[in-house]
Amino acid sequence: MRNLNEDTITQAVLARHANATDARLKTVMTSLVQHLHEFAREVKLTEEEWVAGIEFLTAVGHITDDKRQEFILLSDTLGLSTLVTAMNHRKPDACTEATVFGPFFVEGAPGYELGDDIANGAKGDPCFVRGTVRGVDGTPIGGAVMEVWQADAEGFYDVQYAGDEAHRGRGRIISAPDGSFHFRSILAEAYPIPHDGPVGRMLSALGRHPWRPAHLHFMIKAEGYETLVTHVFRDGDQYLDSDAVFGVRSSLIAQWVRHEPGPTPDGGASSQPFYTLDFDFVLNPAA
Amino acid sequence: MRNLNEDTITQAVLARHANATDARLKTVMTSLVQHLHEFAREVKLTEEEWVAGIEFLTAVGHITDDKRQEFILLSDTLGLSTLVTAMNHRKPDACTEATVFGPFFVEGAPGYELGDDIANGAKGDPCFVRGTVRGVDGTPIGGAVMEVWQADAEGFYDVQYAGDEAHRGRGRIISAPDGSFHFRSILAEAYPIPHDGPVGRMLSALGRHPWRPAHLHFMIKAEGYETLVTHVFRDGDQYLDSDAVFGVRSSLIAQWVRHEPGPTPDGGASSQPFYTLDFDFVLNPAA
Ligand SMILES: [Fe+2]
Ligand SMILES: [Fe+2]
Repeated sequence: MRNLNEDTITQAVLARHANATDARLKTVMTSLVQHLHEFAREVKLTEEEWVAGIEFLTAVGHITDDKRQEFILLSDTLGLSTLVTAMNHRKPDACTEATVFGPFFVEGAPGYELGDDIANGAKGDPCFVRGTVRGVDGTPIGGAVMEVWQADAEGFYDVQYAGDEAHRGRGRIISAPDGSFHFRSILAEAYPIPHDGPVGRMLSALGRHPWRPAHLHFMIKAEGYETLVTHVFRDGDQYLDSDAVFGVRSSLIAQWVRHEPGPTPDGGASSQPFYTLDFDFVLNPAA
Repeated sequence: MRNLNEDTITQAVLARHANATDARLKTVMTSLVQHLHEFAREVKLTEEEWVAGIEFLTAVGHITDDKRQEFILLSDTLGLSTLVTAMNHRKPDACTEATVFGPFFVEGAPGYELGDDIANGAKGDPCFVRGTVRGVDGTPIGGAVMEVWQADAEGFYDVQYAGDEAHRGRGRIISAPDGSFHFRSILAEAYPIPHDGPVGRMLSALGRHPWRPAHLHFMIKAEGYETLVTHVFRDGDQYLDSDAVFGVRSSLIAQWVRHEPGPTPDGGASSQPFYTLDFDFVLNPAA
Protein backbone atom coordinates (compact mmCIF):
# COMPACT_ATOMS: atom_id res chain seq x y z
CA MET A 1 0.00 0.00 0.00
CA ARG A 2 3.04 2.29 -0.30
CA ASN A 3 4.88 3.41 -3.42
CA LEU A 4 1.97 2.64 -5.71
CA ASN A 5 2.63 3.26 -9.37
CA GLU A 6 0.60 3.14 -12.54
CA ASP A 7 0.93 -0.65 -12.65
CA THR A 8 -0.03 -1.35 -9.03
CA ILE A 9 -2.57 1.33 -8.11
CA THR A 10 -5.59 -0.44 -9.58
CA GLN A 11 -5.19 -3.63 -7.57
CA ALA A 12 -4.46 -1.55 -4.46
CA VAL A 13 -7.76 0.31 -4.82
CA LEU A 14 -9.67 -2.93 -5.43
CA ALA A 15 -8.02 -4.56 -2.40
CA ARG A 16 -9.41 -1.75 -0.28
CA HIS A 17 -12.92 -2.98 -1.13
CA ALA A 18 -12.34 -6.29 0.64
CA ASN A 19 -14.74 -5.39 3.44
CA ALA A 20 -17.59 -4.15 1.28
CA THR A 21 -20.73 -5.98 2.39
CA ASP A 22 -22.87 -5.11 -0.63
CA ALA A 23 -21.72 -7.62 -3.24
CA ARG A 24 -23.38 -5.79 -6.12
CA LEU A 25 -21.81 -2.47 -5.15
CA LYS A 26 -18.45 -4.20 -5.01
CA THR A 27 -18.96 -5.64 -8.48
CA VAL A 28 -20.00 -2.30 -9.93
CA MET A 29 -17.16 -0.37 -8.27
CA THR A 30 -14.57 -2.97 -9.25
CA SER A 31 -15.52 -2.61 -12.90
CA LEU A 32 -15.75 1.18 -12.64
CA VAL A 33 -12.29 1.57 -11.08
CA GLN A 34 -10.74 -0.79 -13.62
CA HIS A 35 -12.22 1.04 -16.59
CA LEU A 36 -11.52 4.49 -15.16
CA HIS A 37 -7.87 3.55 -14.62
CA GLU A 38 -7.58 1.81 -17.95
CA PHE A 39 -8.91 4.92 -19.67
CA ALA A 40 -6.30 7.11 -17.92
CA ARG A 41 -3.50 4.67 -18.77
CA GLU A 42 -4.61 4.21 -22.36
CA VAL A 43 -4.55 7.94 -23.16
CA LYS A 44 -1.71 8.70 -20.71
CA LEU A 45 -3.88 11.37 -19.16
CA THR A 46 -1.87 14.49 -18.34
CA GLU A 47 -2.29 16.55 -15.19
CA GLU A 48 -3.66 19.46 -17.23
CA GLU A 49 -6.27 17.14 -18.72
CA TRP A 50 -7.08 15.79 -15.25
CA VAL A 51 -7.60 19.37 -14.03
CA ALA A 52 -9.78 20.09 -17.09
CA GLY A 53 -11.85 17.00 -16.24
CA ILE A 54 -12.30 18.09 -12.62
CA GLU A 55 -13.30 21.58 -13.77
CA PHE A 56 -15.69 20.16 -16.37
CA LEU A 57 -17.46 17.93 -13.84
CA THR A 58 -17.60 20.81 -11.35
CA ALA A 59 -19.26 23.00 -13.98
CA VAL A 60 -21.73 20.21 -14.79
CA GLY A 61 -22.55 19.97 -11.08
CA HIS A 62 -22.91 23.69 -10.60
CA ILE A 63 -25.28 24.27 -13.52
CA THR A 64 -27.45 21.37 -12.34
CA ASP A 65 -30.40 22.36 -10.17
CA ASP A 66 -33.99 21.21 -9.65
CA LYS A 67 -34.85 22.33 -13.19
CA ARG A 68 -31.72 21.51 -15.15
CA GLN A 69 -29.98 18.14 -15.05
CA GLU A 70 -26.68 18.49 -16.87
CA PHE A 71 -25.43 15.06 -15.72
CA ILE A 72 -28.35 13.40 -17.51
CA LEU A 73 -27.55 15.53 -20.55
CA LEU A 74 -23.95 14.32 -20.31
CA SER A 75 -25.04 10.68 -20.05
CA ASP A 76 -27.45 11.19 -22.96
CA THR A 77 -24.90 12.83 -25.25
CA LEU A 78 -22.26 10.19 -24.49
CA GLY A 79 -24.69 7.45 -25.44
CA LEU A 80 -24.73 5.96 -21.95
CA SER A 81 -28.46 6.53 -21.53
CA THR A 82 -29.33 4.71 -24.75
CA LEU A 83 -27.02 1.86 -23.76
CA VAL A 84 -28.66 1.48 -20.35
CA THR A 85 -32.14 1.71 -21.87
CA ALA A 86 -31.28 -0.94 -24.47
CA MET A 87 -29.88 -3.37 -21.89
CA ASN A 88 -32.83 -3.01 -19.54
CA HIS A 89 -35.73 -3.11 -21.98
CA ARG A 90 -35.31 -6.08 -24.20
CA LYS A 91 -38.89 -7.09 -24.96
CA PRO A 92 -41.08 -8.82 -27.54
CA ASP A 93 -41.17 -7.16 -30.97
CA ALA A 94 -44.86 -6.38 -30.63
CA CYS A 95 -44.21 -4.03 -27.70
CA THR A 96 -43.61 -0.31 -28.07
CA GLU A 97 -39.88 0.33 -27.81
CA ALA A 98 -38.39 2.39 -25.00
CA THR A 99 -36.02 5.29 -25.46
CA VAL A 100 -34.11 7.72 -23.27
CA PHE A 101 -35.77 9.49 -20.35
CA GLY A 102 -34.01 12.81 -20.96
CA PRO A 103 -33.50 15.64 -18.51
CA PHE A 104 -36.87 17.41 -18.77
CA PHE A 105 -39.31 15.21 -16.88
CA VAL A 106 -40.87 16.94 -13.88
CA GLU A 107 -42.58 15.20 -10.96
CA GLY A 108 -46.03 16.47 -10.08
CA ALA A 109 -47.19 17.77 -13.44
CA PRO A 110 -50.92 18.61 -13.47
CA GLY A 111 -53.53 15.93 -14.15
CA TYR A 112 -55.85 16.51 -17.11
CA GLU A 113 -59.10 14.98 -18.33
CA LEU A 114 -59.16 13.20 -21.67
CA GLY A 115 -59.57 15.82 -24.35
CA ASP A 116 -57.98 18.63 -22.35
CA ASP A 117 -55.32 20.91 -23.76
CA ILE A 118 -52.07 20.17 -21.96
CA ALA A 119 -50.28 23.02 -23.76
CA ASN A 120 -51.62 25.39 -21.10
CA GLY A 121 -50.43 28.37 -23.06
CA ALA A 122 -47.25 26.91 -24.58
CA LYS A 123 -46.76 28.41 -28.04
CA GLY A 124 -47.21 26.27 -31.14
CA ASP A 125 -49.63 25.03 -33.76
CA PRO A 126 -52.50 23.06 -32.21
CA CYS A 127 -52.10 19.30 -32.24
CA PHE A 128 -54.63 16.62 -31.42
CA VAL A 129 -53.11 13.37 -30.16
CA ARG A 130 -55.08 10.12 -30.13
CA GLY A 131 -54.35 6.47 -29.58
CA THR A 132 -54.75 3.40 -27.44
CA VAL A 133 -52.83 1.58 -24.74
CA ARG A 134 -52.96 -2.19 -25.04
CA GLY A 135 -51.21 -5.36 -23.94
CA VAL A 136 -49.29 -7.58 -26.35
CA ASP A 137 -52.39 -9.72 -26.85
CA GLY A 138 -54.50 -6.67 -27.68
CA THR A 139 -56.16 -6.34 -24.26
CA PRO A 140 -57.15 -2.70 -23.76
CA ILE A 141 -55.40 -1.15 -20.77
CA GLY A 142 -57.69 1.31 -19.04
CA GLY A 143 -56.48 3.45 -16.17
CA ALA A 144 -52.93 3.68 -17.52
CA VAL A 145 -51.21 6.76 -16.11
CA MET A 146 -49.66 8.63 -19.02
CA GLU A 147 -47.18 11.39 -18.34
CA VAL A 148 -46.69 13.53 -21.44
CA TRP A 149 -44.12 16.29 -21.94
CA GLN A 150 -42.81 18.28 -24.87
CA ALA A 151 -41.01 21.42 -26.00
CA ASP A 152 -42.84 24.41 -27.48
CA ALA A 153 -42.53 26.07 -30.90
CA GLU A 154 -39.38 27.88 -29.71
CA GLY A 155 -37.78 24.56 -28.80
CA PHE A 156 -37.97 25.10 -25.05
CA TYR A 157 -39.56 23.08 -22.28
CA ASP A 158 -41.49 25.05 -19.65
CA VAL A 159 -38.72 24.49 -17.08
CA GLN A 160 -36.28 26.32 -19.35
CA TYR A 161 -38.14 29.61 -18.88
CA ALA A 162 -36.66 31.34 -15.83
CA GLY A 163 -39.15 32.73 -13.38
CA ASP A 164 -42.18 30.99 -14.86
CA GLU A 165 -43.39 28.20 -12.58
CA ALA A 166 -46.39 27.20 -14.72
CA HIS A 167 -46.47 23.71 -16.23
CA ARG A 168 -46.84 24.13 -19.98
CA GLY A 169 -46.77 21.35 -22.54
CA ARG A 170 -46.76 18.70 -19.85
CA GLY A 171 -49.43 16.82 -17.98
CA ARG A 172 -50.80 13.53 -16.75
CA ILE A 173 -53.77 11.83 -18.37
CA ILE A 174 -55.43 8.49 -17.70
CA SER A 175 -56.47 6.12 -20.45
CA ALA A 176 -60.19 5.30 -20.74
CA PRO A 177 -61.52 1.82 -19.84
CA ASP A 178 -61.27 0.81 -23.51
CA GLY A 179 -57.57 1.77 -23.49
CA SER A 180 -58.09 4.88 -25.60
CA PHE A 181 -56.70 8.32 -24.89
CA HIS A 182 -56.86 11.70 -26.54
CA PHE A 183 -55.64 15.13 -25.64
CA ARG A 184 -54.75 18.40 -27.23
CA SER A 185 -51.32 19.95 -27.23
CA ILE A 186 -49.04 21.69 -29.72
CA LEU A 187 -46.94 20.54 -32.64
CA ALA A 188 -43.61 18.96 -31.61
CA GLU A 189 -40.62 20.73 -33.15
CA ALA A 190 -36.93 19.90 -33.34
CA TYR A 191 -34.90 21.60 -30.62
CA PRO A 192 -31.29 21.86 -29.50
CA ILE A 193 -30.56 20.39 -26.08
CA PRO A 194 -29.43 23.12 -23.67
CA HIS A 195 -26.03 23.98 -25.07
CA ASP A 196 -25.08 27.08 -23.11
CA GLY A 197 -23.37 24.96 -20.44
CA PRO A 198 -20.47 22.52 -20.18
CA VAL A 199 -22.18 19.76 -22.20
CA GLY A 200 -22.82 22.27 -24.99
CA ARG A 201 -19.14 23.26 -24.92
CA MET A 202 -18.19 19.58 -25.09
CA LEU A 203 -20.42 18.98 -28.14
CA SER A 204 -19.02 22.06 -29.83
CA ALA A 205 -15.42 20.98 -29.16
CA LEU A 206 -16.27 17.58 -30.65
CA GLY A 207 -17.79 19.13 -33.77
CA ARG A 208 -21.25 17.85 -32.85
CA HIS A 209 -24.56 19.69 -33.18
CA PRO A 210 -26.97 19.77 -30.21
CA TRP A 211 -30.22 19.10 -32.09
CA ARG A 212 -32.87 16.52 -31.40
CA PRO A 213 -35.56 15.59 -33.92
CA ALA A 214 -39.08 16.70 -32.97
CA HIS A 215 -40.67 14.33 -30.45
CA LEU A 216 -43.30 13.93 -27.80
CA HIS A 217 -42.29 12.25 -24.50
CA PHE A 218 -44.41 9.60 -22.81
CA MET A 219 -44.03 7.67 -19.58
CA ILE A 220 -46.84 5.13 -19.22
CA LYS A 221 -47.50 3.18 -16.04
CA ALA A 222 -50.15 0.50 -15.65
CA GLU A 223 -50.52 -2.18 -13.02
CA GLY A 224 -49.14 -5.51 -14.15
CA TYR A 225 -47.10 -3.96 -16.97
CA GLU A 226 -43.52 -2.80 -17.37
CA THR A 227 -43.34 0.99 -17.22
CA LEU A 228 -42.75 2.41 -20.69
CA VAL A 229 -40.54 5.48 -21.08
CA THR A 230 -40.47 6.52 -24.70
CA HIS A 231 -40.93 9.26 -27.30
CA VAL A 232 -42.91 9.48 -30.50
CA PHE A 233 -40.70 11.05 -33.20
CA ARG A 234 -41.97 13.18 -36.07
CA ASP A 235 -41.49 11.70 -39.49
CA GLY A 236 -39.54 13.84 -41.94
CA ASP A 237 -37.48 15.64 -39.31
CA GLN A 238 -33.99 16.50 -40.56
CA TYR A 239 -32.36 15.27 -37.35
CA LEU A 240 -33.80 11.74 -37.26
CA ASP A 241 -30.41 10.38 -38.30
CA SER A 242 -28.29 12.57 -36.06
CA ASP A 243 -30.21 12.86 -32.78
CA ALA A 244 -27.80 14.46 -30.28
CA VAL A 245 -28.77 11.83 -27.70
CA PHE A 246 -29.02 8.74 -29.95
CA GLY A 247 -32.65 8.00 -29.07
CA VAL A 248 -34.40 7.49 -32.42
CA ARG A 249 -36.05 4.14 -33.16
CA SER A 250 -37.82 3.53 -36.48
CA SER A 251 -40.84 2.00 -34.75
CA LEU A 252 -41.37 5.25 -32.81
CA ILE A 253 -41.55 7.51 -35.88
CA ALA A 254 -45.05 8.69 -36.71
CA GLN A 255 -46.89 11.18 -38.92
CA TRP A 256 -48.02 14.49 -37.58
CA VAL A 257 -50.75 15.15 -40.19
CA ARG A 258 -51.27 18.78 -41.13
CA HIS A 259 -54.85 20.06 -41.60
CA GLU A 260 -56.04 23.36 -43.06
CA PRO A 261 -58.13 25.67 -40.84
CA GLY A 262 -61.54 24.18 -40.17
CA PRO A 263 -63.30 21.64 -37.93
CA THR A 264 -61.11 19.93 -35.35
CA PRO A 265 -61.36 16.41 -33.87
CA ASP A 266 -62.68 17.81 -30.58
CA GLY A 267 -65.80 19.11 -32.33
CA GLY A 268 -64.53 22.68 -32.41
CA ALA A 269 -62.96 24.64 -35.24
CA SER A 270 -59.52 26.08 -35.78
CA SER A 271 -58.83 29.35 -37.57
CA GLN A 272 -55.23 28.27 -38.09
CA PRO A 273 -53.73 25.08 -39.50
CA PHE A 274 -53.60 22.24 -37.00
CA TYR A 275 -52.12 18.76 -36.72
CA THR A 276 -53.25 15.31 -35.69
CA LEU A 277 -51.08 12.49 -34.39
CA ASP A 278 -52.31 8.92 -33.99
CA PHE A 279 -50.14 6.53 -32.05
CA ASP A 280 -50.89 3.31 -30.22
CA PHE A 281 -48.82 1.94 -27.36
CA VAL A 282 -48.29 -1.73 -26.54
CA LEU A 283 -47.06 -2.49 -23.04
CA ASN A 284 -44.96 -5.45 -21.95
CA PRO A 285 -46.27 -7.53 -19.02
CA ALA A 286 -44.33 -6.87 -15.82
CA ALA A 287 -41.51 -9.33 -15.21
CA MET B 1 -27.99 6.20 -36.45
CA ARG B 2 -31.43 4.74 -35.69
CA ASN B 3 -32.35 1.70 -33.62
CA LEU B 4 -29.07 1.67 -31.76
CA ASN B 5 -28.66 -1.15 -29.31
CA GLU B 6 -26.07 -2.15 -26.74
CA ASP B 7 -23.85 -3.58 -29.47
CA THR B 8 -24.01 -0.63 -31.86
CA ILE B 9 -24.28 2.45 -29.64
CA THR B 10 -20.55 2.79 -28.95
CA GLN B 11 -19.49 3.00 -32.58
CA ALA B 12 -22.40 5.37 -33.27
CA VAL B 13 -21.17 7.78 -30.59
CA LEU B 14 -17.59 7.59 -31.85
CA ALA B 15 -18.73 8.18 -35.44
CA ARG B 16 -20.29 11.42 -34.24
CA HIS B 17 -16.79 12.67 -33.39
CA ALA B 18 -15.70 12.55 -37.05
CA ASN B 19 -15.60 16.33 -37.30
CA ALA B 20 -13.66 17.01 -34.10
CA THR B 21 -10.72 19.22 -35.00
CA ASP B 22 -8.75 18.70 -31.79
CA ALA B 23 -7.04 15.36 -32.35
CA ARG B 24 -6.06 14.93 -28.71
CA LEU B 25 -9.59 15.63 -27.49
CA LYS B 26 -10.87 13.07 -29.98
CA THR B 27 -8.39 10.49 -28.69
CA VAL B 28 -9.31 11.14 -25.06
CA MET B 29 -13.06 11.10 -25.69
CA THR B 30 -12.86 7.96 -27.84
CA SER B 31 -11.19 6.09 -25.01
CA LEU B 32 -13.52 7.58 -22.39
CA VAL B 33 -16.68 6.61 -24.28
CA GLN B 34 -15.38 3.10 -24.94
CA HIS B 35 -14.50 2.50 -21.30
CA LEU B 36 -17.67 4.11 -19.97
CA HIS B 37 -19.77 1.90 -22.22
CA GLU B 38 -17.72 -1.19 -21.53
CA PHE B 39 -18.20 -0.62 -17.80
CA ALA B 40 -21.98 -0.37 -18.23
CA ARG B 41 -22.08 -3.49 -20.39
CA GLU B 42 -19.77 -5.48 -18.14
CA VAL B 43 -21.90 -4.95 -15.02
CA LYS B 44 -25.19 -4.78 -16.98
CA LEU B 45 -25.93 -1.48 -15.28
CA THR B 46 -29.59 -1.24 -14.25
CA GLU B 47 -31.70 1.89 -14.59
CA GLU B 48 -31.89 2.21 -10.80
CA GLU B 49 -28.10 2.11 -10.64
CA TRP B 50 -27.87 4.68 -13.42
CA VAL B 51 -30.22 6.95 -11.46
CA ALA B 52 -28.12 6.40 -8.33
CA GLY B 53 -25.02 7.37 -10.31
CA ILE B 54 -26.65 10.55 -11.63
CA GLU B 55 -27.77 11.44 -8.09
CA PHE B 56 -24.33 10.69 -6.67
CA LEU B 57 -22.55 12.92 -9.19
CA THR B 58 -25.14 15.65 -8.65
CA ALA B 59 -24.49 15.52 -4.90
CA VAL B 60 -20.73 15.66 -5.53
CA GLY B 61 -21.30 18.74 -7.70
CA HIS B 62 -23.57 20.45 -5.22
CA ILE B 63 -21.30 20.06 -2.19
CA THR B 64 -18.37 21.40 -4.24
CA ASP B 65 -17.71 25.11 -3.87
CA ASP B 66 -14.69 27.40 -3.76
CA LYS B 67 -13.57 25.79 -0.49
CA ARG B 68 -14.54 22.16 -0.94
CA GLN B 69 -13.62 20.11 -3.99
CA GLU B 70 -15.49 16.82 -3.76
CA PHE B 71 -14.59 15.78 -7.34
CA ILE B 72 -10.89 15.87 -6.41
CA LEU B 73 -11.75 13.86 -3.31
CA LEU B 74 -13.54 11.35 -5.54
CA SER B 75 -10.57 11.13 -7.90
CA ASP B 76 -8.23 10.75 -4.93
CA THR B 77 -10.24 8.01 -3.24
CA LEU B 78 -10.65 6.05 -6.48
CA GLY B 79 -6.89 6.09 -7.00
CA LEU B 80 -7.13 8.13 -10.20
CA SER B 81 -5.07 10.99 -8.77
CA THR B 82 -2.20 8.70 -7.77
CA LEU B 83 -2.34 7.05 -11.19
CA VAL B 84 -2.13 10.39 -13.00
CA THR B 85 0.66 11.60 -10.70
CA ALA B 86 2.65 8.41 -11.27
CA MET B 87 2.34 8.60 -15.06
CA ASN B 88 3.33 12.25 -15.25
CA HIS B 89 6.23 12.35 -12.81
CA ARG B 90 8.60 9.58 -13.72
CA LYS B 91 11.98 11.02 -12.74
CA PRO B 92 15.48 10.06 -11.62
CA ASP B 93 15.66 8.18 -8.30
CA ALA B 94 17.59 11.01 -6.67
CA CYS B 95 14.64 13.39 -7.04
CA THR B 96 12.00 13.88 -4.40
CA GLU B 97 8.93 11.89 -5.38
CA ALA B 98 5.61 13.57 -6.15
CA THR B 99 2.30 12.61 -4.63
CA VAL B 100 -1.32 13.70 -4.91
CA PHE B 101 -2.31 17.35 -4.88
CA GLY B 102 -5.40 16.82 -2.75
CA PRO B 103 -8.43 19.11 -2.45
CA PHE B 104 -7.12 21.61 0.14
CA PHE B 105 -4.69 23.82 -1.75
CA VAL B 106 -5.74 27.47 -1.82
CA GLU B 107 -4.48 30.09 -4.26
CA GLY B 108 -3.21 33.30 -2.71
CA ALA B 109 -2.06 32.05 0.69
CA PRO B 110 0.00 34.66 2.57
CA GLY B 111 3.72 35.02 1.98
CA TYR B 112 6.00 34.57 5.02
CA GLU B 113 9.64 35.30 5.81
CA LEU B 114 11.94 32.42 6.60
CA GLY B 115 11.50 31.58 10.26
CA ASP B 116 7.94 32.86 10.47
CA ASP B 117 5.13 30.87 12.05
CA ILE B 118 2.73 29.85 9.28
CA ALA B 119 0.31 28.32 11.80
CA ASN B 120 -1.19 31.80 12.29
CA GLY B 121 -3.22 30.53 15.22
CA ALA B 122 -3.98 27.00 14.02
CA LYS B 123 -4.08 24.68 17.04
CA GLY B 124 -1.34 22.13 17.59
CA ASP B 125 2.04 21.43 19.15
CA PRO B 126 4.73 23.76 17.80
CA CYS B 127 6.86 22.32 15.03
CA PHE B 128 10.04 23.70 13.49
CA VAL B 129 10.61 22.63 9.88
CA ARG B 130 14.02 22.91 8.23
CA GLY B 131 15.65 21.71 5.06
CA THR B 132 17.12 22.54 1.71
CA VAL B 133 16.01 22.67 -1.91
CA ARG B 134 18.61 21.39 -4.36
CA GLY B 135 19.04 20.08 -7.88
CA VAL B 136 19.96 16.47 -8.64
CA ASP B 137 23.65 17.45 -8.78
CA GLY B 138 23.45 19.14 -5.38
CA THR B 139 23.18 22.70 -6.69
CA PRO B 140 21.38 24.80 -4.06
CA ILE B 141 18.15 26.28 -5.40
CA GLY B 142 17.58 29.73 -3.93
CA GLY B 143 14.38 31.63 -4.59
CA ALA B 144 12.25 28.50 -4.83
CA VAL B 145 8.64 29.36 -4.11
CA MET B 146 7.40 26.88 -1.51
CA GLU B 147 3.67 26.63 -0.84
CA VAL B 148 3.05 24.78 2.40
CA TRP B 149 -0.31 23.64 3.78
CA GLN B 150 -1.47 21.33 6.54
CA ALA B 151 -4.31 20.36 8.85
CA ASP B 152 -4.45 21.38 12.50
CA ALA B 153 -4.54 19.27 15.67
CA GLU B 154 -8.26 18.65 15.15
CA GLY B 155 -7.58 17.26 11.69
CA PHE B 156 -9.08 20.21 9.82
CA TYR B 157 -7.66 22.57 7.24
CA ASP B 158 -8.48 26.27 7.67
CA VAL B 159 -10.92 26.15 4.75
CA GLN B 160 -12.99 23.55 6.61
CA TYR B 161 -13.95 26.08 9.29
CA ALA B 162 -17.13 27.81 8.12
CA GLY B 163 -17.15 31.58 8.42
CA ASP B 164 -13.43 31.91 9.16
CA GLU B 165 -11.62 33.43 6.21
CA ALA B 166 -8.17 33.51 7.86
CA HIS B 167 -5.38 31.44 6.32
CA ARG B 168 -4.09 29.13 9.06
CA GLY B 169 -1.49 26.44 8.65
CA ARG B 170 -0.73 27.53 5.13
CA GLY B 171 1.66 29.98 3.54
CA ARG B 172 4.26 30.69 0.94
CA ILE B 173 7.96 30.93 1.75
CA ILE B 174 11.00 31.45 -0.46
CA SER B 175 14.17 29.41 -0.09
CA ALA B 176 17.37 31.32 0.80
CA PRO B 177 20.19 31.74 -1.76
CA ASP B 178 21.93 28.67 -0.29
CA GLY B 179 18.74 26.63 -0.90
CA SER B 180 17.88 26.42 2.78
CA PHE B 181 14.50 27.11 4.29
CA HIS B 182 13.02 27.05 7.76
CA PHE B 183 9.68 27.98 9.22
CA ARG B 184 7.54 27.28 12.21
CA SER B 185 4.15 25.58 12.10
CA ILE B 186 2.34 22.90 14.10
CA LEU B 187 2.64 19.14 14.36
CA ALA B 188 0.99 17.28 11.46
CA GLU B 189 -1.66 14.82 12.64
CA ALA B 190 -3.63 12.08 10.90
CA TYR B 191 -7.05 13.25 9.73
CA PRO B 192 -10.09 11.82 7.98
CA ILE B 193 -10.84 13.33 4.59
CA PRO B 194 -14.18 15.16 4.65
CA HIS B 195 -16.61 12.26 4.95
CA ASP B 196 -19.91 13.99 5.62
CA GLY B 197 -20.68 14.14 1.89
CA PRO B 198 -21.21 11.75 -1.03
CA VAL B 199 -17.58 10.55 -1.13
CA GLY B 200 -17.77 9.74 2.59
CA ARG B 201 -20.94 7.74 1.97
CA MET B 202 -19.21 5.90 -0.86
CA LEU B 203 -16.25 4.98 1.35
CA SER B 204 -18.58 3.84 4.09
CA ALA B 205 -20.61 1.69 1.68
CA LEU B 206 -17.35 0.12 0.49
CA GLY B 207 -16.20 -0.65 4.02
CA ARG B 208 -13.33 1.83 3.74
CA HIS B 209 -12.09 4.26 6.39
CA PRO B 210 -11.52 7.91 5.44
CA TRP B 211 -8.19 8.45 7.25
CA ARG B 212 -4.96 9.84 5.91
CA PRO B 213 -1.64 9.48 7.72
CA ALA B 214 -0.23 12.73 9.13
CA HIS B 215 1.49 14.82 6.46
CA LEU B 216 2.65 18.25 5.44
CA HIS B 217 1.89 19.43 1.87
CA PHE B 218 4.45 21.16 -0.32
CA MET B 219 4.29 22.61 -3.80
CA ILE B 220 7.71 23.87 -4.86
CA LYS B 221 8.30 25.95 -7.98
CA ALA B 222 11.69 27.07 -9.19
CA GLU B 223 12.75 28.36 -12.59
CA GLY B 224 14.29 25.65 -14.74
CA TYR B 225 12.89 22.84 -12.61
CA GLU B 226 9.81 20.63 -12.76
CA THR B 227 7.23 21.80 -10.22
CA LEU B 228 7.13 19.40 -7.28
CA VAL B 229 3.79 18.66 -5.63
CA THR B 230 4.32 16.36 -2.69
CA HIS B 231 3.80 15.63 1.01
CA VAL B 232 6.13 14.71 3.82
CA PHE B 233 4.55 11.87 5.82
CA ARG B 234 5.06 11.30 9.53
CA ASP B 235 6.85 8.11 10.42
CA GLY B 236 4.98 5.80 12.79
CA ASP B 237 1.53 6.89 11.72
CA GLN B 238 -1.00 4.07 11.89
CA TYR B 239 -2.46 4.93 8.48
CA LEU B 240 0.74 4.82 6.43
CA ASP B 241 -0.38 1.51 4.94
CA SER B 242 -3.99 2.41 4.39
CA ASP B 243 -4.00 6.05 3.23
CA ALA B 244 -7.54 6.77 2.01
CA VAL B 245 -6.09 8.42 -1.10
CA PHE B 246 -3.17 6.04 -1.84
CA GLY B 247 -0.51 8.75 -1.65
CA VAL B 248 2.19 7.32 0.65
CA ARG B 249 5.71 6.82 -0.71
CA SER B 250 8.46 5.42 1.50
CA SER B 251 10.91 8.10 0.41
CA LEU B 252 8.55 10.79 1.70
CA ILE B 253 8.30 9.42 5.24
CA ALA B 254 10.25 11.43 7.81
CA GLN B 255 10.71 11.79 11.56
CA TRP B 256 8.92 14.48 13.48
CA VAL B 257 11.28 14.53 16.49
CA ARG B 258 9.69 15.34 19.84
CA HIS B 259 11.50 17.65 22.26
CA GLU B 260 10.73 18.38 25.91
CA PRO B 261 9.94 21.98 26.88
CA GLY B 262 13.01 24.17 26.62
CA PRO B 263 15.07 26.08 24.03
CA THR B 264 13.75 26.02 20.48
CA PRO B 265 15.65 26.15 17.15
CA ASP B 266 14.55 29.74 16.56
CA GLY B 267 16.45 30.90 19.65
CA GLY B 268 13.35 31.11 21.79
CA ALA B 269 11.99 28.72 24.38
CA SER B 270 8.86 26.59 24.53
CA SER B 271 6.93 25.89 27.73
CA GLN B 272 5.31 22.91 26.03
CA PRO B 273 6.80 19.96 24.14
CA PHE B 274 7.67 20.80 20.54
CA TYR B 275 8.76 18.99 17.38
CA THR B 276 11.36 19.38 14.69
CA LEU B 277 11.21 18.07 11.16
CA ASP B 278 14.19 18.04 8.82
CA PHE B 279 13.53 17.31 5.17
CA ASP B 280 15.48 18.09 2.00
CA PHE B 281 13.93 18.39 -1.42
CA VAL B 282 15.60 17.51 -4.71
CA LEU B 283 14.03 18.97 -7.85
CA ASN B 284 14.09 17.51 -11.33
CA PRO B 285 15.27 19.76 -14.16
CA ALA B 286 12.41 20.99 -16.33
CA ALA B 287 11.84 18.86 -19.41
FE1 LIG C 1 -37.23 16.00 -25.29
FE1 LIG D 1 -3.72 16.78 3.29
